[in-house]
Amino acid sequence: MCFKQYNAEEVLLGRKMEDWLRFSVCYWHTFCGIGADPFGSQTLHRPWNQGTPMESARNRLNAAFEFFNKLGVKYYTFHDRDMAPEGSTLEESNRNLDQLTDLALQLQAQTGVQVLWVTCNLFAHPRYMNGAATNPDSHVLAYAGAQVKKGLDVAKKLGAENFVFWGGREGFYSILNTDVAAELKHMANFFKMAVRYKEKIGLKCQFLIEPKPKEPCKHQYDYDAMSVIGFLKHYGLDDHFKLNIEPNHTTLAGHSYEHDIVMASAFGMLGSVDSNTGSPDLGWDTDQFPMDTKNTTLVMKVIIEQGGLQPGGLNFDAKVRRESTDLEDLFIAHIGAMDAFARGLRNAVRLTEEGLLPGMVKERYSSFAQGLGQRVEEGTATLEDMEAYIKQNGEPKVTSGKQEKYESIFNQYI
Amino acid sequence: MCFKQYNAEEVLLGRKMEDWLRFSVCYWHTFCGIGADPFGSQTLHRPWNQGTPMESARNRLNAAFEFFNKLGVKYYTFHDRDMAPEGSTLEESNRNLDQLTDLALQLQAQTGVQVLWVTCNLFAHPRYMNGAATNPDSHVLAYAGAQVKKGLDVAKKLGAENFVFWGGREGFYSILNTDVAAELKHMANFFKMAVRYKEKIGLKCQFLIEPKPKEPCKHQYDYDAMSVIGFLKHYGLDDHFKLNIEPNHTTLAGHSYEHDIVMASAFGMLGSVDSNTGSPDLGWDTDQFPMDTKNTTLVMKVIIEQGGLQPGGLNFDAKVRRESTDLEDLFIAHIGAMDAFARGLRNAVRLTEEGLLPGMVKERYSSFAQGLGQRVEEGTATLEDMEAYIKQNGEPKVTSGKQEKYESIFNQYI
Amino acid sequence: MCFKQYNAEEVLLGRKMEDWLRFSVCYWHTFCGIGADPFGSQTLHRPWNQGTPMESARNRLNAAFEFFNKLGVKYYTFHDRDMAPEGSTLEESNRNLDQLTDLALQLQAQTGVQVLWVTCNLFAHPRYMNGAATNPDSHVLAYAGAQVKKGLDVAKKLGAENFVFWGGREGFYSILNTDVAAELKHMANFFKMAVRYKEKIGLKCQFLIEPKPKEPCKHQYDYDAMSVIGFLKHYGLDDHFKLNIEPNHTTLAGHSYEHDIVMASAFGMLGSVDSNTGSPDLGWDTDQFPMDTKNTTLVMKVIIEQGGLQPGGLNFDAKVRRESTDLEDLFIAHIGAMDAFARGLRNAVRLTEEGLLPGMVKERYSSFAQGLGQRVEEGTATLEDMEAYIKQNGEPKVTSGKQEKYESIFNQYI
Amino acid sequence: MCFKQYNAEEVLLGRKMEDWLRFSVCYWHTFCGIGADPFGSQTLHRPWNQGTPMESARNRLNAAFEFFNKLGVKYYTFHDRDMAPEGSTLEESNRNLDQLTDLALQLQAQTGVQVLWVTCNLFAHPRYMNGAATNPDSHVLAYAGAQVKKGLDVAKKLGAENFVFWGGREGFYSILNTDVAAELKHMANFFKMAVRYKEKIGLKCQFLIEPKPKEPCKHQYDYDAMSVIGFLKHYGLDDHFKLNIEPNHTTLAGHSYEHDIVMASAFGMLGSVDSNTGSPDLGWDTDQFPMDTKNTTLVMKVIIEQGGLQPGGLNFDAKVRRESTDLEDLFIAHIGAMDAFARGLRNAVRLTEEGLLPGMVKERYSSFAQGLGQRVEEGTATLEDMEAYIKQNGEPKVTSGKQEKYESIFNQYI
Repeated sequence: MCFKQYNAEEVLLGRKMEDWLRFSVCYWHTFCGIGADPFGSQTLHRPWNQGTPMESARNRLNAAFEFFNKLGVKYYTFHDRDMAPEGSTLEESNRNLDQLTDLALQLQAQTGVQVLWVTCNLFAHPRYMNGAATNPDSHVLAYAGAQVKKGLDVAKKLGAENFVFWGGREGFYSILNTDVAAELKHMANFFKMAVRYKEKIGLKCQFLIEPKPKEPCKHQYDYDAMSVIGFLKHYGLDDHFKLNIEPNHTTLAGHSYEHDIVMASAFGMLGSVDSNTGSPDLGWDTDQFPMDTKNTTLVMKVIIEQGGLQPGGLNFDAKVRRESTDLEDLFIAHIGAMDAFARGLRNAVRLTEEGLLPGMVKERYSSFAQGLGQRVEEGTATLEDMEAYIKQNGEPKVTSGKQEKYESIFNQYI
Repeated sequence: MCFKQYNAEEVLLGRKMEDWLRFSVCYWHTFCGIGADPFGSQTLHRPWNQGTPMESARNRLNAAFEFFNKLGVKYYTFHDRDMAPEGSTLEESNRNLDQLTDLALQLQAQTGVQVLWVTCNLFAHPRYMNGAATNPDSHVLAYAGAQVKKGLDVAKKLGAENFVFWGGREGFYSILNTDVAAELKHMANFFKMAVRYKEKIGLKCQFLIEPKPKEPCKHQYDYDAMSVIGFLKHYGLDDHFKLNIEPNHTTLAGHSYEHDIVMASAFGMLGSVDSNTGSPDLGWDTDQFPMDTKNTTLVMKVIIEQGGLQPGGLNFDAKVRRESTDLEDLFIAHIGAMDAFARGLRNAVRLTEEGLLPGMVKERYSSFAQGLGQRVEEGTATLEDMEAYIKQNGEPKVTSGKQEKYESIFNQYI
Repeated sequence: MCFKQYNAEEVLLGRKMEDWLRFSVCYWHTFCGIGADPFGSQTLHRPWNQGTPMESARNRLNAAFEFFNKLGVKYYTFHDRDMAPEGSTLEESNRNLDQLTDLALQLQAQTGVQVLWVTCNLFAHPRYMNGAATNPDSHVLAYAGAQVKKGLDVAKKLGAENFVFWGGREGFYSILNTDVAAELKHMANFFKMAVRYKEKIGLKCQFLIEPKPKEPCKHQYDYDAMSVIGFLKHYGLDDHFKLNIEPNHTTLAGHSYEHDIVMASAFGMLGSVDSNTGSPDLGWDTDQFPMDTKNTTLVMKVIIEQGGLQPGGLNFDAKVRRESTDLEDLFIAHIGAMDAFARGLRNAVRLTEEGLLPGMVKERYSSFAQGLGQRVEEGTATLEDMEAYIKQNGEPKVTSGKQEKYESIFNQYI
Repeated sequence: MCFKQYNAEEVLLGRKMEDWLRFSVCYWHTFCGIGADPFGSQTLHRPWNQGTPMESARNRLNAAFEFFNKLGVKYYTFHDRDMAPEGSTLEESNRNLDQLTDLALQLQAQTGVQVLWVTCNLFAHPRYMNGAATNPDSHVLAYAGAQVKKGLDVAKKLGAENFVFWGGREGFYSILNTDVAAELKHMANFFKMAVRYKEKIGLKCQFLIEPKPKEPCKHQYDYDAMSVIGFLKHYGLDDHFKLNIEPNHTTLAGHSYEHDIVMASAFGMLGSVDSNTGSPDLGWDTDQFPMDTKNTTLVMKVIIEQGGLQPGGLNFDAKVRRESTDLEDLFIAHIGAMDAFARGLRNAVRLTEEGLLPGMVKERYSSFAQGLGQRVEEGTATLEDMEAYIKQNGEPKVTSGKQEKYESIFNQYI
């Protein structure tokens, strides 16, 4: 139970490992998870869950900071309702949150641990069963708005570097009872209210939307990176949001593990990563700890290429299996995943520094650096230019894509 | 072998059946298909395929118009290379196309059959194996541009109502050898050139992009409706394009049959439909004739709600199975599919006219018609308003979504 | 809220509708379901859930029989732990079960409602998290054995017509910590013990295994119909078991809705059906009420062809959506599904009686009724015969499969 | 372009690397592949494809043996129709095959390269479009039988160590026109004829069935390992066949990469491996070269545990991408894949020799080594024993499955 690959202070490409990786522990799985699944009841019994709900919440928070310290992780993430129990009224819930965030603030100051991001749980309470911002009943939407207002206040209070929206119930279960156009508009207007309030209170953090294709809904509007980008641009919200990409959600959307990280980055929209994994043969969110070095290498390669993730980070939105009932399994799992990402970082750094694969890619596109290619690149070419070029130059020569060569070379780095 | 449901002249909701449905026969499957698949060779031997390539092409075109007439369909669609064989140079290919489109123009005039849309085949020739507009070699991109220029000229010549772009090779097979950001930019600039040329020659038709998630590529940039919408809006192209949705592509993207039709319509981007189907248990494009009445009802419901598809239509991008070797199978298949859509139209009309389900949906969202809901709808509400509302009104009441009721009622219409 | 298609007493093909359909209500979803999902808490609050656990259990049972009567359904199914709460020891659990089954017996006598099947819940209690019959700890296997012994006693007491085994945790989450060969052998020996005990106590009911590919496990040994058939035959258990097929499990295994019903029937192993549905675009078990007439027609066609399902039936292993919070939704859902199956039955009867499609299929295989085909059918032909036949008769003629014709005709029946 | 991991003569666990791995090159992809796909035409132009079909075939065979030698691979595999062109009659096809196998025999003698397995192509010719052994027309079945007779003769002539049946068209495209029970029986009788003929001619090779779930069929009867095992046992064929597992087929069936290798081995039925890979996000057979070290390690671990694959081997049923147009790509791809498997072998050997993970697994199941567990293992325990045991010993203690620990340790070996 010690790191084999991760070494926080080691400098790679001019930056400490911990600054490239910016690991974060999530509150919901690691401190609130009880090991229930749709076919079985609680298997995980944590020592901090005792006393009244508020006592439990305090114990949990203290235990969490102890865990962060032992593990050597500098960031954490949470939903409002993870940290403090929901009361019977909004006012009571907010008071609970005030008390717990006071303690959190104090623990942050003592330890230097920071909030990577905070988010509001707008999906677990029965009131949200038909959606929060997209609920057919405006009364429910109002409740969600009130909750987000408080969440933004909390983000400011705790100095959160990001604020995440995950629309677990923003979608539909049946198209027959749903007015999609109305719901999309309501969701956009909801986000606009959040932007205005953020600006009003001078909250500086980055807003992030986390795509997921389905589950719990049959269909969620934030299906994948491109769906969210389309939505944001349609409603003029794209300057105010980036994406928090979770690879387990990406694979559920039918893409490869790294796909949405690549796409979000290509569109300048990659804000943060929920570093977990699913099993490609399963059709639901398993939130496993990421252990595949090929995947972590591909992700870190993109992150290096865009110059890092800050103010985002690598948040372990991952849970120990419900069969992993020992307390030490929490440590084993995080350490294994941190090592997997550290190894991925080392690989990606070596790929970058040796430059073999990047050089091959650059050469592959080199025709766009001059002549007609350059004019395409710059947007000044015309179809008439194209036709004239072909009439003069005829058929292009065949160039092998050499995928197997790229794969073989890549294998030498992992 | 006669229509059980389709009746071209029958008027429903103030419009003739044929005007609601705007059926179109596709050239590639129905007249060029030979029944080969990745594991087997040609099974379909058509009488029109004899003589030199150009003679075959003429025979095929004459046979096609005979088929349109017998079937009573008013529109057809084709790729440039379906209609006329590719020559050994661009010039020769263009001359071939000129000759065949002369004949097409004449046949159109004789029969009244029109071009629903034309498209360029930028994926079958080996030169496009690594992409057309996204090829790493600008020479290939130039070839694609030259081909599209001619395609637009042809669209104008034949009075096509739409022009489709399907980016079969615009994507990647391996992320390791691909510069995604560069390719996306090239693709956007390619579309901009097409827009400029279209405007220059005064071509009036609607530009359409047809999403597909994968196949032949491992990943295509035009993954689904929302991906294309995101791309178009990012590059400022959304005023110039709508979408041509193919349900078999939609299901391959992990959505339900009607999903992209619903989403494209909600964003005001539904231009046309490639009315086919796949099998939900298969992971590739089978392009089957649509025979499921539930699906056709859902599609026609959306089309009615947006007031029709014109200038788009329902194009049968569908092929008889390679085991359906009789010539009559072409008729049987089209008639079966036309009946399936005619039945879907009848069902959707009845749904609309009786108003039971639409009324239930309207009632479900009625809280947005006044008060705070209305201000959300209009975009004038704030988070502070929300909080105040909840402090005053407390918890919303639980309202059943009643999905099973909607499903049971819907069943009475199909 | 009345039947549109179902008419219990109506006679079709010489048998009452209710005898063809043998509908059964499941206890777990309909009376124990609370509307929680992995992302949200309880939404369904039923009037029968009040008092101590044993009081609740009695209220629930009385309410269940009231529901059966109102609905007009003659069968029900349950897990041991649905009917009576688990105690703190096996003895206490068994006592609870004794008390509740006394009441059940009395209610059965009063109403004539019968047990279609009973099953033991060997997956929900934390002790079973790593499997029941396949647990790496023999102590857990022993617990499962003790529970099944009681379950078989209960089956006898209540006159259950079938007894189901669903191995929700019989499989693995990670191949790395699993000895597959050992687990399979233990499971087989577990089934053998059950067979011996069944014979010892003179229990007459049919044993059924219910396949499911995954969920909760990453992989379940009873993946699909053919997997179970292979397992049963390998361990010499096939004379003692048939299959209980659930279409939602079939589609999760990558097959079409009707697939495992067709395959199980072809191997003489179709015992009963859990008549529900999933959504083909979702990768988890949604247990929706079956509402698709095409599917119900295909299922009823197989059932008619094999002469009925008795002693099995159509058990609604389906739950109202967690958003369907009204008590009446339970009725609406069952009635909608019963109508969908009744309509499927009517369609299948018409298909059978008119004989058009069955006749086309028979004609298609007619070459096996004489000559070399007949000898293949009987198993007396040799490869040498084949070669001689081809040397004499040469190439076979091409015969169209005419899939579209079959589909179009089928559409006229649904 | 040289091996980084593979070293044929190096001895591991008492056996040479080449004897553990038994690599084989496939004929169809590597020498017959032309780079066409359903959306594009030929991209691969090989120097050996010139002259008449028979001249081409001879050139190809000579080139193939040159390739085997350069690569240092000792086995190859082929379909009858890969090696010699199909003639216009069975007799002509057989004569072609005689001539080419004469040459093959000579080349085998010169080089020491051997046939790992031979198979008959019963899917590509149009006559097989509706199936070979399961064709509705017995005339087609006879043709398949005649072809298999010759194939078995060829296997004997060339000393093939195995003979493979892949039923690409043995299944259905539409359940509506299919008599599943009849087709299964015909297929079983077909296999029985092959067994009888094999015995008659004294052919010693192992018969193998290769499962595939779908493609080209909508559904193939040989869906996966367990489906084939079920079929073989039902028809009493299991003593005469083992399985040839292709991981790309396994993943298409919804399993993890190594699944069918694990299951086939657990049932004593693993005969050979088609060592390729697909992409988990794609729904069709891509037949890529295997490059993932985690997968190759898992496969080699199973192979070591069952004591090797002989007379089977690792056949590269993999093709260079159609964009990999250079001749050297054939070498690069095979070398990369051989290195990936050699690395997997090294990892699996280290896992075995160090014994850490195997020891943890053994400990996990240790309760079956004595007492009640042992009686379960031996099949002598009863349900009554179980109940007595629980009444005495009560609730089992909870034992963590420790999946993350297994995964972390496994990561240290790859």
